[in-house]
Amino acid sequence: MVGQVIQIRQNDGKAINQYFCRMNTEIINIGNELLIGQVINTNAAWMASKMSQAGFAIRLVSVIPDDPDAILEALAAAESRSEIVLVTGGLGPTKDDLTKETFCKYFKTRLVFHEASFEDVTRIFSNRGIPMSELNRKQAEIPESSTPISNKNGTAPGMWFEKTSSDNRKVVFVSMPGVPFEMKPMLENSVIPMLKNIFPSRSIVHRTILTQGIGESFLSDILESWELKLPGFITLAYLPQPGLVRLRLSGTGDDPLSVREAVDAEVKKLYTIIPDYIYGEEEDLLEEIIGKMLTDRGATLSTAESCTGGYIAHLITSIPGSSGYFKGSIIAYSNEVKSGELNVKETDLVTYGAVSEQVVIQMALGVQKKLSTTYSIATSGIAGPAGGTNEKPVGLTWIAVAGPSGVQASSFLFGENRERNIRKTALEALNLLRKQMLDAGC
Amino acid sequence: MVGQVIQIRQNDGKAINQYFCRMNTEIINIGNELLIGQVINTNAAWMASKMSQAGFAIRLVSVIPDDPDAILEALAAAESRSEIVLVTGGLGPTKDDLTKETFCKYFKTRLVFHEASFEDVTRIFSNRGIPMSELNRKQAEIPESSTPISNKNGTAPGMWFEKTSSDNRKVVFVSMPGVPFEMKPMLENSVIPMLKNIFPSRSIVHRTILTQGIGESFLSDILESWELKLPGFITLAYLPQPGLVRLRLSGTGDDPLSVREAVDAEVKKLYTIIPDYIYGEEEDLLEEIIGKMLTDRGATLSTAESCTGGYIAHLITSIPGSSGYFKGSIIAYSNEVKSGELNVKETDLVTYGAVSEQVVIQMALGVQKKLSTTYSIATSGIAGPAGGTNEKPVGLTWIAVAGPSGVQASSFLFGENRERNIRKTALEALNLLRKQMLDAGC
Repeated sequence: MVGQVIQIRQNDGKAINQYFCRMNTEIINIGNELLIGQVINTNAAWMASKMSQAGFAIRLVSVIPDDPDAILEALAAAESRSEIVLVTGGLGPTKDDLTKETFCKYFKTRLVFHEASFEDVTRIFSNRGIPMSELNRKQAEIPESSTPISNKNGTAPGMWFEKTSSDNRKVVFVSMPGVPFEMKPMLENSVIPMLKNIFPSRSIVHRTILTQGIGESFLSDILESWELKLPGFITLAYLPQPGLVRLRLSGTGDDPLSVREAVDAEVKKLYTIIPDYIYGEEEDLLEEIIGKMLTDRGATLSTAESCTGGYIAHLITSIPGSSGYFKGSIIAYSNEVKSGELNVKETDLVTYGAVSEQVVIQMALGVQKKLSTTYSIATSGIAGPAGGTNEKPVGLTWIAVAGPSGVQASSFLFGENRERNIRKTALEALNLLRKQMLDAGC
Repeated sequence: MVGQVIQIRQNDGKAINQYFCRMNTEIINIGNELLIGQVINTNAAWMASKMSQAGFAIRLVSVIPDDPDAILEALAAAESRSEIVLVTGGLGPTKDDLTKETFCKYFKTRLVFHEASFEDVTRIFSNRGIPMSELNRKQAEIPESSTPISNKNGTAPGMWFEKTSSDNRKVVFVSMPGVPFEMKPMLENSVIPMLKNIFPSRSIVHRTILTQGIGESFLSDILESWELKLPGFITLAYLPQPGLVRLRLSGTGDDPLSVREAVDAEVKKLYTIIPDYIYGEEEDLLEEIIGKMLTDRGATLSTAESCTGGYIAHLITSIPGSSGYFKGSIIAYSNEVKSGELNVKETDLVTYGAVSEQVVIQMALGVQKKLSTTYSIATSGIAGPAGGTNEKPVGLTWIAVAGPSGVQASSFLFGENRERNIRKTALEALNLLRKQMLDAGC
C-alpha cells in the first residue's frame, strides 16, 4: 500500500519526514465552549498524537459550534476530502438529541433503541446508586444505520457510520463524546483497532527516550554522527520541555517485528552514547523512578529547599505511596531557618552567601541528619526575577545530594524565568539523586 | 448595529445567551506540529477568549498543515463565509518564505522590503548581542498590499490584508506569528483595536469574580434569586476549576458607561451575598493576595504540611518577592517528623491519628513557634488513592491556621483524586488564612 510522507518541522527548524497511511483523516470538535475559549481543545492534540502514532496523519482539525447547520456543513465538507472523519462532542445528556438528530438527517436514517447501549447506561447508574430518568433512556437510542461503540465510562455510546462519497470513495465517520475520559479509551481501544482493520497500513513502531541534564542543541551535537547513520526507515524527533528533552524514534516498514528490532537496536546504541542523561522511557516521571529506586533499596529521602520552596517535596509526594520512603522536608526560605533548623553556620552564610557550595552542602547534611534519612536533596539559588547581582546572577543555583557515600554539590546557571528556574532545578536535583543512587550501585 | 446572540452551554447543562458582533470571525492555525499532537493548540482558546470578550464570536477554528495548497484552500474557504480571518503560524525564520509567498499568491501581490520592520528585527538582534543573517533580513520583507503590524517580541511582523469577496463583502485577513508570546500582545494591543475600529460593535463589559470554598451547585442555589433578577443585558457564567469557581458577568449595550455601571452594581450586590467566598477578581491568584496582605501587615508565614507535601509552600514561593514574608516550612510527611520537629504529642498521634483536629492544631502551633512567624498553616489528610478507612475515608482533610488571635481548625471531605485533593486542600487553606487575617481586622 502506497503511503504519504509528511515533513514535520521541529522547534530548531530542522525538518524530519514521517511516514503515514495514505488515507486522509480529519477531526471535527463540536462545542461552543471551545469557540469562546472557555475550554482549551486538548482533545485534538491527544487524538492527533494517537492517530499519527497509529499511522493516520491528521490533515485538518475543525472546531465548530453546537449548531445543526454548522454540523451538516462540516460533515459535507469533510466527506468531500477525507476518508476518515472523527467527530467529538455534542453527545452529553443535554446535547444528545441535537447531534444525534443531525446525524440522522445527514445519513438519512432514524433513531432506534439499542439494547446493549441501554445495558451500559443502566450499569453505570446502578454502580453510582442513582435512579435513571427518561432522558438517560434516550441516550441508548442511536441512528439505525450506525454501529454503536460501547462507552465504558459514560452514558452515551459512540457511533460508527460508513458512507460512499459522490466521487465513490468509502468514508468512515466516527462520533464520540467530548468528555476526555470517555473519548480517550473509546478512540484507543475501539476506534483505532477498527480503523486499522479497514485501512491496513504499514507498521509504525515508536519508542520515546527521556533525557534530563542536557539542552536540545548540545544533545543534537553529541548525537549527530549516530543520527546520520540511522536507517532511512527510522526517524528521530527532539521534543523539548522545560528541564528535559524527549527523543522519539519512529520506524516504519512492512514487517512489524523487524522494524521493532531495528528501533530497539538504535535505542540500545543511544543508551551507550548518553547513559547519564537517560532517566526513563515513554510516560515515566523522574519522581516516580526515584520512588521505585528508593523503595527497592529500602532507603528514605528528605529535602532541604530554599529556591525551590517545596516544589521538589511536592513532586515526590504527588506519587501515590510516597509516604513509604519520603519522611519530610525543611523548607528554609529564610537564612534564619537555614541556620536555626539545618545547622548551617551563620559565619558561612555571611562569608559565602546563601547561594553557595558551602551552604547547600550543610543544608543537605543538616536535613539528612535531622530527619534521619538515607538520602537528602538541598537547593539554594536565585529564582528571579529580582535578587541577582553581577557576581551571582538570576538563575544561579546550587544543588547538593547527600547519601551513604557522602555529599556532592553542583552549580547551574538557568535562565531568567522564575517558574522555569524552579522546575529546572527540581528536575536536575532529582536526576542528580538518581545518578548518586546508581553510582552507589546498591 | 444588529448583532447575534449565541447560546453557550455550561458544565451543568444550563444554557446562557451571549451577545456578539454580527461579523463572522474565524481562526486558522497553521502548523504540522499541531496536527501530530506534538503541541496543544492553546493559541486558539486564548484568541477565542480575547475575541469573544471584545464582542467578536468565533464561528470556526481550523488547524491546517504547513502546506501552500492547504493554506490557499483554507483562505478561500474562509473568505467565502467570514468577514474576519485570523491566521497564526508559518512566520518563523525557517517557515517564513512559504507562508509569505503563499499569501502573495493568494492576494496577487509581491514581497517588498519594509524599513520599519527591519528596524524592529535589527533592534532585537542588537539587544541580544547576536549578529544578523541574510535570513533575518528577509523577515523584514512583506507583501506589498499588506499593512505590517509591529512585532515587539520577535523578528517577523504581522500582516493585515483587506479584500472584497466575490459576493461583495469586505473581508479582513490578519496573519500573526504562531509563538504565543509574540502573537498575544500583537492580537491584544494592535489587532483587536484595529478590528474594533473597522467593525464597530455594541459595548461589552466583563467582570470576573473569583470564589473559593463553595462548589458550583451550592453557589448557584445561593445566587439563584439574585441571578433571576439580573437585567436582560447582563449574563452570568459559572466557570469552575478544581478548588474554585469563577463567576463572569457580561453586560452588553450601546452606552459603555451605563453598562459598566450596571455590571458594577450587580457585582456590589454579589459581594454582600457571598462576602466570605470572594477572594479576588479577574486574574488574581490567592497566593498573591495572601502575599500582599502579609506584606501590608508586616506579618510572616510558615507552613507545616503533611498531605499537601510542600504544595502550599510551592504556591507561596511561586510569587516573586515571597522571601519578604515567607520564612519556610516543615514538611512532616512521617509521624516521626510530626513529633520530632513539630512537637506533636506521640500519644495524640496514637489516640486520634495523624489526620485529626488535635494533631493538625499542634502542627500549626509547632511550626509557628519554631520558625517564629506571625501566621502558620498546617494540613493533614488522606490524599489517596490508598490509605482510607471506613472511619477516615480518602479525601478527609484537616486544616489549621494559627495567628495572633489563636488557632482554628476545620475538616473537609474532598474526592478520590490525589492531585485534586492536594490542590483543593491548598486553596482551602490559603482562603482560611485570608479570612483569619480579615477577621483579625489588622
